[in-house]
Amino acid sequence: MTAPAGPMSPEHLAERLRDGDMRSLARALTWVERRGNGFETLLGVLLPHAGRAQLVGISGPPGAGKSTLIGRLVEQYGAVQPVAVLSVDPTSVVSGGALLGDRIRMTDVSLADNVFVRSVATRGTAGGLSLACWDLALVLDAAGYDPILIETVGAGQGETEVRYLADTTVQVEAPGLGDHVQALKAGMLEVSDIVVVNKADRPDSAQTAARIRQTLALGMETGLAPHAFHGQANDTERGWVQPILLTDALAGTGIDELQDRIAEHRDWLCASGVRGDAERRRAARLLNLLVDQGWQARRRAMLEAAGWEDAVEAVAVREREPHAAARRLLQRVFGD
Amino acid sequence: MTAPAGPMSPEHLAERLRDGDMRSLARALTWVERRGNGFETLLGVLLPHAGRAQLVGISGPPGAGKSTLIGRLVEQYGAVQPVAVLSVDPTSVVSGGALLGDRIRMTDVSLADNVFVRSVATRGTAGGLSLACWDLALVLDAAGYDPILIETVGAGQGETEVRYLADTTVQVEAPGLGDHVQALKAGMLEVSDIVVVNKADRPDSAQTAARIRQTLALGMETGLAPHAFHGQANDTERGWVQPILLTDALAGTGIDELQDRIAEHRDWLCASGVRGDAERRRAARLLNLLVDQGWQARRRAMLEAAGWEDAVEAVAVREREPHAAARRLLQRVFGD
Repeated sequence: MTAPAGPMSPEHLAERLRDGDMRSLARALTWVERRGNGFETLLGVLLPHAGRAQLVGISGPPGAGKSTLIGRLVEQYGAVQPVAVLSVDPTSVVSGGALLGDRIRMTDVSLADNVFVRSVATRGTAGGLSLACWDLALVLDAAGYDPILIETVGAGQGETEVRYLADTTVQVEAPGLGDHVQALKAGMLEVSDIVVVNKADRPDSAQTAARIRQTLALGMETGLAPHAFHGQANDTERGWVQPILLTDALAGTGIDELQDRIAEHRDWLCASGVRGDAERRRAARLLNLLVDQGWQARRRAMLEAAGWEDAVEAVAVREREPHAAARRLLQRVFGD
Repeated sequence: MTAPAGPMSPEHLAERLRDGDMRSLARALTWVERRGNGFETLLGVLLPHAGRAQLVGISGPPGAGKSTLIGRLVEQYGAVQPVAVLSVDPTSVVSGGALLGDRIRMTDVSLADNVFVRSVATRGTAGGLSLACWDLALVLDAAGYDPILIETVGAGQGETEVRYLADTTVQVEAPGLGDHVQALKAGMLEVSDIVVVNKADRPDSAQTAARIRQTLALGMETGLAPHAFHGQANDTERGWVQPILLTDALAGTGIDELQDRIAEHRDWLCASGVRGDAERRRAARLLNLLVDQGWQARRRAMLEAAGWEDAVEAVAVREREPHAAARRLLQRVFGD
């Protein structure tokens, strides 16, 4: 948990990774992910250079073809600009070498230079999305990658959490995953900015898209807010109607349109003023997570100092009422 | 959220419920469960009278026949002593009137006087087991009920949590719930004090018991501690070997033996000195829950006072590094 070996200051490392040095970037990411000594200093140095990238959350159940879709996006973005993938999906093949092996024609050297893929460990994180993911996105942002695709799996906590971090969220579904669509009815679909029905070569894909359209329409009628995560009652009123796209990632069809919609969403975020709200929401969420982490880190020592052992003993032998004992501990901790 | 109507002091209410007045008991329980004004005072008055009851957690998957089994236990205990049931299982029929209707011959008036059944709402509790459950158990304990059976369902948080609260835990399984047994392999079985295979009339019950026995033996070999919740590496070394009992709750067979084993476990807890450890573990757990609840209740106001809005704004516009901002907030909150 110390800084990586070698005498490189945060300032120097930041300079080199901003110059496009991949090894420095990898080093910075590892430093930040492992919470090595001084990683906050590095983040502070990088901070003024971040804020330009569009963070795109790409979520969906296993089997929807997310990895292939991301491979296609990376291929297209990478041909013209630096693009990064943060994979929070432990089952992902994107980070497993497949993406940079079979799926992308990496014989194109300039493409390889433009693409950065990194998997993020999710172990030990209550919310599913690692707290480190926020910091890794900042580093990639400052290094000039744009967009940054953040891949999460399933319908779990990580998918909810990524909606705080991402500017734009894409929910990927596929025909024949009916149960998943059912389960999502009031959930993930409605808080997504773009819905993709992948595997559009399948005969039932139009039906799946129709069902999703219906689900979303119902949600709006019942007042279940689409884009509740934007802190708005209804983004539709502010000009964004969730598109439902058909793609066939294996064949490569529909990817252009998805790229267009992702770009449109970014334009809309800026033009509508929603982006400012989203930035504040994102900041509040991150501060909340960090403050709670800080409380957890401090609580043991603070409670010990406030007489924890005595309190436990007194409660155990029924000399002290537990609520009163807890209140007294809290009063000592907070000095009130 | 105020004290129940009527001019009754905590002292008076405590006196009456200890005299066996059922209405006063119900009133006290409602007061405590709803966190009405002064409920801690009531708990404080009752505290010296608690500590005698054996708290028995009874857990198991839906379909294992828990409710019927509890009905039988209540019938047998109730014939000779006051017994209470706290049902944390939202699907339970024990609290749904069935127990006091069909299942128990409540024509025996003395039995009705000896039995108290109460369901506990689990809404809004992260741990699955309501924090109020701890306090309700205290009230019933002080009112002279012994044992107090605490019913939880499934393999979720509630079942884990009840192991902190209970003196003795009974895990109920049944033949034909194979998946559940699989899932439990390294889990609930090993932290139970007594394992019951109910529906012993079924031909595959012996097989289920054998599989459970094997699972437990494996756990011990691999060092996966049985009774890890007792804070001991191994209760076996201290003299308690988990019995695996066969019962047929519908027919009423095996219930005597289960009662005997529950009594034996209590004797062992006291004789081995484990009970003292368990009391401290229980007190520590409850204080932890209460302290965290207190932190959650205070954090918004404290963070506002520490400059929350400014911090969010500064982080949102990338003027301040989030980790540093969170640390500053925490320093202001804790005055260090």
